[in-house]
Amino acid sequence: MDRFMEEALSEAATGLAEGGIPIGAVLVRGGRVIGRGHNRRVQQDDPVLHAEIDCLRNAGRVGRYADTVLYSTLMPCYLCAGAVVQFGIPRVVAGESRNFAGARAFLLDHGVEVIDLDLPECYEMMAAFIAGHGDLWNEDIGDL
Amino acid sequence: MDRFMEEALSEAATGLAEGGIPIGAVLVRGGRVIGRGHNRRVQQDDPVLHAEIDCLRNAGRVGRYADTVLYSTLMPCYLCAGAVVQFGIPRVVAGESRNFAGARAFLLDHGVEVIDLDLPECYEMMAAFIAGHGDLWNEDIGDL
Repeated sequence: MDRFMEEALSEAATGLAEGGIPIGAVLVRGGRVIGRGHNRRVQQDDPVLHAEIDCLRNAGRVGRYADTVLYSTLMPCYLCAGAVVQFGIPRVVAGESRNFAGARAFLLDHGVEVIDLDLPECYEMMAAFIAGHGDLWNEDIGDL
Repeated sequence: MDRFMEEALSEAATGLAEGGIPIGAVLVRGGRVIGRGHNRRVQQDDPVLHAEIDCLRNAGRVGRYADTVLYSTLMPCYLCAGAVVQFGIPRVVAGESRNFAGARAFLLDHGVEVIDLDLPECYEMMAAFIAGHGDLWNEDIGDL
């Protein structure tokens, strides 16, 4: 597997072990991870701590994002895609989009390159979580 | 002035007094403020803590947003508008959009009602800040 997606998946697994929603993300610049995070809605009781938001927050004030790539185990939602577009992150790599189509069209419309790896490891972890915790998942994407 | 926008403006003033970017927001449900916040990029060294994000975070896990209104002293950017669209907040009231046009079209395209109060109090506080701290402002909206 892509080594950065492996790191994002490891973040997702950490989130699952903590009792959270298993989505992970890393921000990469020049072949190096400069930020990592995972969804912590449950752990922190924080509705905006999606994996990508947690990752961008942990990366800190990195200046321009023009040479960064955001990896996420799941196709970003509008909140996270909004961050990508506003901050000018030019490329998003998603682990899968079968469990959630996300805001792919919005990203493409704003000139962001989107790569969907469609990885079974990402799909299966998320599918199992949604099957067991549909309530939490629906809350996370505002589908209530 | 609208009493909720007054509270958002008071949040912005708090941010300014802290040395931060003067943008404030409140989330309202049933005529009551259920969350408030202000931009804390500088104070927390956190690039995603825009006023609206801080406000949604402070509101906590409020469940459905269908009966909420988000007030912000400035028209929301894509990050914050993305949160509005993803969580299904049906109405946004902005203090002004002259300093920053924001993601109004995106909100409208997704069925969000957008009201722009175009208030001198909001405009002037932000204009003065941008004039004195263009670097911070550009960093905040990813215009680097």
